[in-house]
Amino acid sequence: MTAKPRALVDMYGRKIDEIFSSDDLARLHDTVTVLWAKDAPMPEDEAAQVLQDADILICSQWRYGELRDRFPRLRAIIDVGGGLPRGLDYEEAFRRGIHVLTAAPGFGRQVAEMALGLALAACREIAIGDQAMRQGREAYMHGGNETTFMLFDKPIGIIGYGGIASALHPLLIPFGGSISAYDPWLGDGYLRSRGVTPKPLDQLLEESKFIFVLAAPSSDNNALLDRGRLEMIAPDAVLLLISRAHVVDFEALTDLLAEGRFRAGIDVFPEEPLPADHRIRALQSAVLSAHRAGSVREGMWDLGRLVVDDVELLARSLPPRRLQPAARELVTLLTNA
Amino acid sequence: MTAKPRALVDMYGRKIDEIFSSDDLARLHDTVTVLWAKDAPMPEDEAAQVLQDADILICSQWRYGELRDRFPRLRAIIDVGGGLPRGLDYEEAFRRGIHVLTAAPGFGRQVAEMALGLALAACREIAIGDQAMRQGREAYMHGGNETTFMLFDKPIGIIGYGGIASALHPLLIPFGGSISAYDPWLGDGYLRSRGVTPKPLDQLLEESKFIFVLAAPSSDNNALLDRGRLEMIAPDAVLLLISRAHVVDFEALTDLLAEGRFRAGIDVFPEEPLPADHRIRALQSAVLSAHRAGSVREGMWDLGRLVVDDVELLARSLPPRRLQPAARELVTLLTNA
Amino acid sequence: MTAKPRALVDMYGRKIDEIFSSDDLARLHDTVTVLWAKDAPMPEDEAAQVLQDADILICSQWRYGELRDRFPRLRAIIDVGGGLPRGLDYEEAFRRGIHVLTAAPGFGRQVAEMALGLALAACREIAIGDQAMRQGREAYMHGGNETTFMLFDKPIGIIGYGGIASALHPLLIPFGGSISAYDPWLGDGYLRSRGVTPKPLDQLLEESKFIFVLAAPSSDNNALLDRGRLEMIAPDAVLLLISRAHVVDFEALTDLLAEGRFRAGIDVFPEEPLPADHRIRALQSAVLSAHRAGSVREGMWDLGRLVVDDVELLARSLPPRRLQPAARELVTLLTNA
Amino acid sequence: MTAKPRALVDMYGRKIDEIFSSDDLARLHDTVTVLWAKDAPMPEDEAAQVLQDADILICSQWRYGELRDRFPRLRAIIDVGGGLPRGLDYEEAFRRGIHVLTAAPGFGRQVAEMALGLALAACREIAIGDQAMRQGREAYMHGGNETTFMLFDKPIGIIGYGGIASALHPLLIPFGGSISAYDPWLGDGYLRSRGVTPKPLDQLLEESKFIFVLAAPSSDNNALLDRGRLEMIAPDAVLLLISRAHVVDFEALTDLLAEGRFRAGIDVFPEEPLPADHRIRALQSAVLSAHRAGSVREGMWDLGRLVVDDVELLARSLPPRRLQPAARELVTLLTNA
Repeated sequence: MTAKPRALVDMYGRKIDEIFSSDDLARLHDTVTVLWAKDAPMPEDEAAQVLQDADILICSQWRYGELRDRFPRLRAIIDVGGGLPRGLDYEEAFRRGIHVLTAAPGFGRQVAEMALGLALAACREIAIGDQAMRQGREAYMHGGNETTFMLFDKPIGIIGYGGIASALHPLLIPFGGSISAYDPWLGDGYLRSRGVTPKPLDQLLEESKFIFVLAAPSSDNNALLDRGRLEMIAPDAVLLLISRAHVVDFEALTDLLAEGRFRAGIDVFPEEPLPADHRIRALQSAVLSAHRAGSVREGMWDLGRLVVDDVELLARSLPPRRLQPAARELVTLLTNA
Repeated sequence: MTAKPRALVDMYGRKIDEIFSSDDLARLHDTVTVLWAKDAPMPEDEAAQVLQDADILICSQWRYGELRDRFPRLRAIIDVGGGLPRGLDYEEAFRRGIHVLTAAPGFGRQVAEMALGLALAACREIAIGDQAMRQGREAYMHGGNETTFMLFDKPIGIIGYGGIASALHPLLIPFGGSISAYDPWLGDGYLRSRGVTPKPLDQLLEESKFIFVLAAPSSDNNALLDRGRLEMIAPDAVLLLISRAHVVDFEALTDLLAEGRFRAGIDVFPEEPLPADHRIRALQSAVLSAHRAGSVREGMWDLGRLVVDDVELLARSLPPRRLQPAARELVTLLTNA
Repeated sequence: MTAKPRALVDMYGRKIDEIFSSDDLARLHDTVTVLWAKDAPMPEDEAAQVLQDADILICSQWRYGELRDRFPRLRAIIDVGGGLPRGLDYEEAFRRGIHVLTAAPGFGRQVAEMALGLALAACREIAIGDQAMRQGREAYMHGGNETTFMLFDKPIGIIGYGGIASALHPLLIPFGGSISAYDPWLGDGYLRSRGVTPKPLDQLLEESKFIFVLAAPSSDNNALLDRGRLEMIAPDAVLLLISRAHVVDFEALTDLLAEGRFRAGIDVFPEEPLPADHRIRALQSAVLSAHRAGSVREGMWDLGRLVVDDVELLARSLPPRRLQPAARELVTLLTNA
Repeated sequence: MTAKPRALVDMYGRKIDEIFSSDDLARLHDTVTVLWAKDAPMPEDEAAQVLQDADILICSQWRYGELRDRFPRLRAIIDVGGGLPRGLDYEEAFRRGIHVLTAAPGFGRQVAEMALGLALAACREIAIGDQAMRQGREAYMHGGNETTFMLFDKPIGIIGYGGIASALHPLLIPFGGSISAYDPWLGDGYLRSRGVTPKPLDQLLEESKFIFVLAAPSSDNNALLDRGRLEMIAPDAVLLLISRAHVVDFEALTDLLAEGRFRAGIDVFPEEPLPADHRIRALQSAVLSAHRAGSVREGMWDLGRLVVDDVELLARSLPPRRLQPAARELVTLLTNA
């Protein structure tokens, strides 16, 4: 890539200025020749030639058919969504040394911040307390704290120590509690090097007062937190369901919350929109959020910044550093979730 | 105090086990001879002798009349509330070298945690979002984030850098924004040594996206944030009113919130209970909390822990280290608020 | 002090520009009327009047006779040395509410930095290794590391958790080892609140791989580390003697180092200059430094900065925040060392 | 790798127990079938079959000829030295999806610790001061600090922000100075995300008081710090030459140190052993160390720990996380240094 590389920006369903701040868009244009970057989809007749010319593809899913024939020059595929593109011929990409990258780490800060906000809302009863004041039935001081507790000094468990956890962990450290993690893909040595105590899942569920579910969905972790595991959670602990509903048995979770077994902060649901009559809408034991942790306007620009940072490196024939590379060993697990 | 000192525990309006965990109560009994420690007030006829004998007084206000005559042996007065006792003859106490101490720093963690929780609830619209889900009118993902923003990287201003700020500051550091403070009693050198940038009040109000009002009430700061100053706050900034409503012109604040000029998280009110028909109850621009930041059950034990830690030192004829000593220069300002 | 207070700067044995940077000296002159601030001692005939007029005294020892009669206006005595002035009538000072302050915390950073430097020099054999290269007898790589070890992850013990320890502790945290402390004046609760584990002295000596002796000399701790205690130190541990030789039995220490029982970094000696023929000069088990931890030119200005910061507060009738106040309970112990 | 993988441990010039602690060696044997792991080289006649069978190769250089034919099963090549193996057919390795990994990050802590030790020794004159005491010509207190300075608050520049820098950076943060970095392979966005300010090399040299040379040698950076660049260094700054002498013009460096232009801490030399009469041996402006930063006995086990951590992951068909993967774009630059 000694000449200025050519990039195709084709983010189905996402607008250019939703992902790229104006500064980053200018940086992108300084770095590469942009073959296409509009909010509308590429017309069919232009597409064929553009694909032939592209060195870098910035997309939000794979909808280009065969990699082998259509992208003869491609050096990098960058997905701006949170997961790996499906339908891509990864073997071909790896064989050709094409970087397959996702902007998932760019979600880290906004999602982590919301996860902490939901945790505090749950234990300090912030949403309930706000609602009480609006209805004129609030209790002051001790009267309003009969069932609250603090995050400070509490044992915390993290399920899935990836990009969100990496952003959340520093926010939790000043609260002083022990932090443990379960992540079967990372190994105990890696987890310890990050400053968390590795724990088997069941032990983590039993011993943590705050449990953050941050695992990316995979074919391995569907309903990982099934009814039996959810029943291990300590009374009055707080479960923060942040990454995907896929990871829990949502009906079992709803049952246990209905019984008041523990508390929850929930940002993701098995169906979105959640059915209007879903009984979880009425439960006081949960703080509910409509998949809002990862779409803050300014937060989305974190994604674009990572993309342009790595495009700059790719344009200089250097390895990318900011986006997350697809790992050959995990592709099948992650794209079949 | 080479013999075991004698302590009177007489916390008007607070129960013993509300302040002292059972462990700390045991430690207290190991350290001193407790002359009186019941939830009921001391009978008048016992009181006179007890006061004569007390080396240490643990109270929640001063209701003993003249210090001079009634407490001949007193070495320390410890107030477990958040402020200095009123009505005490401080000159006499200072002259006699009696430590006058408050457990105010013990409120730091619980209040700081709530302040952060309210800040996140305000910018990420957690309470509003929860309420929307209960009413079946939630918007998902980008639709639910049209007016949200993040705490990450935002300029933060702290008004009053005392015990609450000392506990809050570490929680804010990992969010990466610049942190400035206004505190006329501390001096710029001290503030800088704590890692914050000193700023004049008006500049802080204009430049901060999150403003934490943490100043203890004093005769100097009544309605410090008057209408003119509140109007300096940037559009869509978040004001966190945490320490006392005394510090703001609450009607002006309500007006500006009603106009949607900025947002707020409010834990304290000029009248508590707040009148049922106060118009702030209906405003979506504020997250409301019924003076609940500083009365978490387990949080209150932080107060007792500090008390017993210092009683242990006093019993060994050592200076106290954990409670906050009354400063001679500030007593009048603080007790006439 | 509503009018501009008057200050006498009379630092026996220290030059003005050794303590105050030019910026801080300018700040001082802006804040107070300086009655005397020269490197020469005050002439006897001027002195009497100056003392009568002084609100604030900045000195490096007490050589003014009776406080009672000679300083009718005095509000603060500030000693720029590391310890409390001797010969002062503390009872009179406390009775009159005069602040007695020392600039000791200003030594923290420079001394802490040297303490860490000596620790690394000892375990990584930096001085020995440098000397070997000059003599052409160096061994490379593994050959030069047969007896070295790392600070990372090692148990650290701190004896005396005051100003130096407060500056050293943050430097040690990233090395990841557990940090314990022994300080009989502070109490376990305080130590824990600072993030260190309180330990009895003997246990600390036995269990620590790096032992930092940072205690201020007092009448209580003369030869606290006597031969018996020094013998508890683990083989090949490192003793850093930083605050004062007063705290150890120096002959016993020399014996044990001569036997190669453990290592040391030593900045302070019972006699300075150390006798030319003292056998410790020849021992390879110690890194030696001629009381150089606390006199770095730029480091001395830390003292002056603290002084002026607090003079600014005193001039505004506010309590000082940066200098260390004399504690009534400790004065006798500290001034009779 | 669902069956237990087979590993060949063949670390030319390094002993098994020099790299692996007994715990880690036990872990290795639990995880893989070890085909060969002795300190002696493999006999020729055994070698052919062993290579045929190996899934994982743990080596310290490549001395096996053609990858293509001899290692039909190989999934990972792990070099326990600090650099990439030379002579390996990287294209073939990448094409086959073989992980090429180095244990370089395992040197981070021991080297970083020494770099800091040398920096403190240089500015606080620890080795010089120790030598003075042995020769009975030491100066005490201010007399011994006429030319010393502190690391606290000084601008720091890092050249090469890789594994050593990642370990050193946390050690420098508590010293409070600004930290900038030059690394042409990483990009400004990445550097900022690590909390350092990216700077062009010349600006970094001019503006830093402490300059850490940590760059891995490559065909791009031979004598990167040539005479002209070395002359940009500020008077009395400290250059820490840590990674490789390759990166500087050593004769120019010696000249400038001889003139007393700045100071240095030097752990690596263009020839090792350094010629006995090299004039740098006599210069007081440098602290000298015989390539001793990266061979501490217990430090070497950091390498082995990373190796076994990743072997555990590989054995479970998961991507490695601890060792450093060879980047396709950098292989040629790094192996032709």
